[in-house]
Amino acid sequence: MADKTEIEEGLAFAPQFGADGLITAVVTDVKSGDVLMVAHMNQDALAKTIESGEAWYYSRSRQRLWKKGESSGHVQRVVELRVDCDQDALWLKVEQAGEGACHTGRRSCFYRAVPLGQTGTVKLEFRDAGMTFDPKAVYGKP
Amino acid sequence: MADKTEIEEGLAFAPQFGADGLITAVVTDVKSGDVLMVAHMNQDALAKTIESGEAWYYSRSRQRLWKKGESSGHVQRVVELRVDCDQDALWLKVEQAGEGACHTGRRSCFYRAVPLGQTGTVKLEFRDAGMTFDPKAVYGKP
Repeated sequence: MADKTEIEEGLAFAPQFGADGLITAVVTDVKSGDVLMVAHMNQDALAKTIESGEAWYYSRSRQRLWKKGESSGHVQRVVELRVDCDQDALWLKVEQAGEGACHTGRRSCFYRAVPLGQTGTVKLEFRDAGMTFDPKAVYGKP
Repeated sequence: MADKTEIEEGLAFAPQFGADGLITAVVTDVKSGDVLMVAHMNQDALAKTIESGEAWYYSRSRQRLWKKGESSGHVQRVVELRVDCDQDALWLKVEQAGEGACHTGRRSCFYRAVPLGQTGTVKLEFRDAGMTFDPKAVYGKP
């Protein structure tokens, strides 16, 4: 591992993949500023994203490389890619094609809020939870 | 683990902590919409955040619970807390006290961009990288 100061203050890109070979990627909509999703990249997904300017990820559940929008057409054009201080997280500002980023049919994956000021069991509240597309029609399965 | 449909469409809060007991938390500035930092919470940090409305995290490097701002005074008031579709990531919209969120002295931890359209070795570029506070003065150590 490179020197801490070099990682934090240098201009050498040294992404710190975890023990699982993945790095966290936060994706925001360049227009609204909303967080659309949180995903993961392996080295190959990151290289393809940088080269193509379109977002590629690594699916932990499917255990394979995945181009966002390959099934849905909802590709993400990366307007800006940033890395954080310790280079173990990425931030993608994207133009989201189609009607949303979430496989459930919403614009963003973050369509429920956790109420604050409570202890014990918490009940979520829907926020911006309206469907913007029909996932069955887009993905061809429920 | 709860049923997938219940996790995605239900209102029961069932945060999916990883094998390490942590869940990823994305923090954005409620005013600018910028991503300030990516951090992690354990169950205790999450409970304290919900109860107090101020952000608590779990530091992987220091292996301990940590209230944001405990050293710097740069506390984060949580305006809204959201959870994503599969309940394994959190989004905190915060009012950031003080001059920044990053321990390096910047407003955001994401002060370097990765240029796109390239292959091979990539050189980072500073973006919004000006110091907004002096970390030595704020943290009392370099």
